[in-house]
Amino acid sequence: MEQILLPKGFLSCAKNVGIKDNTPDFTVIYSETRAAAAAMFTKNQFCGAPVTVGKEHIKNGFLQAFVVNSKNANVATGQQGIEDVQTIVEVVAKELGIESADILPSSTGVIGVPLPVQKIVKGIPGLKNELKKDGLKDSAEAIMTTDTFAKFRSTEINGIKLCAIAKGSGMIEPNMATMLSYIMTDAEIEPAALKAILKRAVDVSFNMVSVDSDTSTSDTVAAMANGLAGPVDLEKFEEALTDMLISLAKDLAKDGEGATKLVEVQVDGAQNNDEAKLMMKSIINSPLVKTAIFGADPNWGRIISTIGNADYPIKPEKVCVSFGDITVFNEGEPAESDLDELTKYLEGNEIIISISLGDGQGKATGWGCDLSYDYVKINGEYTT
Amino acid sequence: MEQILLPKGFLSCAKNVGIKDNTPDFTVIYSETRAAAAAMFTKNQFCGAPVTVGKEHIKNGFLQAFVVNSKNANVATGQQGIEDVQTIVEVVAKELGIESADILPSSTGVIGVPLPVQKIVKGIPGLKNELKKDGLKDSAEAIMTTDTFAKFRSTEINGIKLCAIAKGSGMIEPNMATMLSYIMTDAEIEPAALKAILKRAVDVSFNMVSVDSDTSTSDTVAAMANGLAGPVDLEKFEEALTDMLISLAKDLAKDGEGATKLVEVQVDGAQNNDEAKLMMKSIINSPLVKTAIFGADPNWGRIISTIGNADYPIKPEKVCVSFGDITVFNEGEPAESDLDELTKYLEGNEIIISISLGDGQGKATGWGCDLSYDYVKINGEYTT
Repeated sequence: MEQILLPKGFLSCAKNVGIKDNTPDFTVIYSETRAAAAAMFTKNQFCGAPVTVGKEHIKNGFLQAFVVNSKNANVATGQQGIEDVQTIVEVVAKELGIESADILPSSTGVIGVPLPVQKIVKGIPGLKNELKKDGLKDSAEAIMTTDTFAKFRSTEINGIKLCAIAKGSGMIEPNMATMLSYIMTDAEIEPAALKAILKRAVDVSFNMVSVDSDTSTSDTVAAMANGLAGPVDLEKFEEALTDMLISLAKDLAKDGEGATKLVEVQVDGAQNNDEAKLMMKSIINSPLVKTAIFGADPNWGRIISTIGNADYPIKPEKVCVSFGDITVFNEGEPAESDLDELTKYLEGNEIIISISLGDGQGKATGWGCDLSYDYVKINGEYTT
Repeated sequence: MEQILLPKGFLSCAKNVGIKDNTPDFTVIYSETRAAAAAMFTKNQFCGAPVTVGKEHIKNGFLQAFVVNSKNANVATGQQGIEDVQTIVEVVAKELGIESADILPSSTGVIGVPLPVQKIVKGIPGLKNELKKDGLKDSAEAIMTTDTFAKFRSTEINGIKLCAIAKGSGMIEPNMATMLSYIMTDAEIEPAALKAILKRAVDVSFNMVSVDSDTSTSDTVAAMANGLAGPVDLEKFEEALTDMLISLAKDLAKDGEGATKLVEVQVDGAQNNDEAKLMMKSIINSPLVKTAIFGADPNWGRIISTIGNADYPIKPEKVCVSFGDITVFNEGEPAESDLDELTKYLEGNEIIISISLGDGQGKATGWGCDLSYDYVKINGEYTT
């Protein structure tokens, strides 16, 4: 993919500072003017040191830079971890000539290993001269861990630009915010409005993805709106943002560790949207469903079993289940489905599972992936 | 392992009736006298047809036989499934000369495929003559699905015998009852006392096992006490039963689909036992923890992240984590642990993870297994 231009007044750079190997591991995304900002963070109670610091910095609703390293999460590193983030933020602030408190820091990678802060500090001087308008793809690469492709999107509405990058491949089940994603726009939006729009967009995109039911300690989604392109129709902006984040969410699921297939689960007829989401998550996270999809095994009984495990009462006699257009279970009875046809469908690389509970108006759509040999390989050999 | 003798008055037989292939797939365990009985069943809302029938038959607290087939679960088979169970129960009752209502039926295997009821019915005549006192190991084999070894135990207290068999290897996270397990004793115990003892013993044994966080549609634990050896000290009986079921529970975890290691997770210092159990389950079920253990990857940060995802407030600064005797995290700070030593420990085949939350008296111990390539293989190719 080609580089994409950042919105007005935004610049970025990405580089290797040698945290683990010689691949890009550090990026700064900067706005020439202070920007309205909003962010959502992991609900994990062992949140990373950068999350602790970032939560303070976002409080007033303004930021001027995102600073992110990969290869080390700076999590479970105690008081030293906090001091290390502060050091990095101060050195970057000095280099860019901005306030430390206007920087949102993030780190992603291994947990429990002290951050090699001196390596990062050495990589900062001169960085301001490396900033450019067309380097966002490099930033998307610099925040990758086990991701196999860089995730970035761009859109425009009436002359307003909107860009975002994201990373995430394992330890992904955002409950509140998500893995890492940064959104930049030159639209003029008040911090409070930006925060509300971001939350709603994340709720139907990143919060609907699960790769392995583990919520990372570092999850962060943050947005800066620097206003340089003037005001925007907020409804259209929210629609564009939501579409963009759904595309990125599907990229995350498709790039789940070891994934060979994107799985979309649509649930309707639940008593409310929360119950539909719970059901969607339980299907997306079932190792038995995920391995059957990997092996294109037409074992639809595993969906039935997972539905039956719902934490709330369902009406078994109303339940219908389909894979694509193939109905396998209809109002509590097995449908006369062609298992060969189902196997063929499961051999594709995008699988849609639809579940109707027949018990209300609640619905939810979410995304995940299959569970393959490579998931085991990647996660059995992560630190070694 | 050698065959074990059943308690007084119990007989069993196991055979192949051709449900799927030529391995044993059908067993009957019979008491010569009507026995006090108790049972616990799956909480899955799509419970199997035999579970629906079994719940009715156990209501009065008496049984005289267990009848079990493997290779087909008779789940999601609609009204026909119920009729098929009733047919089998009636034919067995006639053969044994007992009441249909004194039979507890179970089925385990693939979901959503009609039970080949005629094959089973053809295998029943003459079965009474095949019953013997020393065939329990064969019964344990006949109820296996993806299990790699037969699970059976026997114990004695003051002349009272206590035997049990169990099966289960995948789709295992009993929340209330468990996979299949049948317990036979010649002790004299009232149905109500038997039920209470069974529940307490299951709560600290089978209910503490999870292979893949999926609760099967067919889970059943049932006990018969025919009283032929006279009364028993109930406290000692409960202790012996609990020990026996814990041994079987560990067998189940050890034989989890594709498992190469038994994992024991001990949690203490939680605010109460329920919270300790939730924490234990979240560690036992984390795919990231399970794959790291499979690969002997000393990536203890995954335990920290999983602890942080608890649904209730923890005190991160109090948390301690050890693998065997190796402490990796001590009161909120990384301990100076030797990662090579940790790798060596993780290469063993029994891994103990201890977590202290430092926040109360609640505790729980549970068992699971690692997540290997073979789990993916077994479950990607199950029906095909």
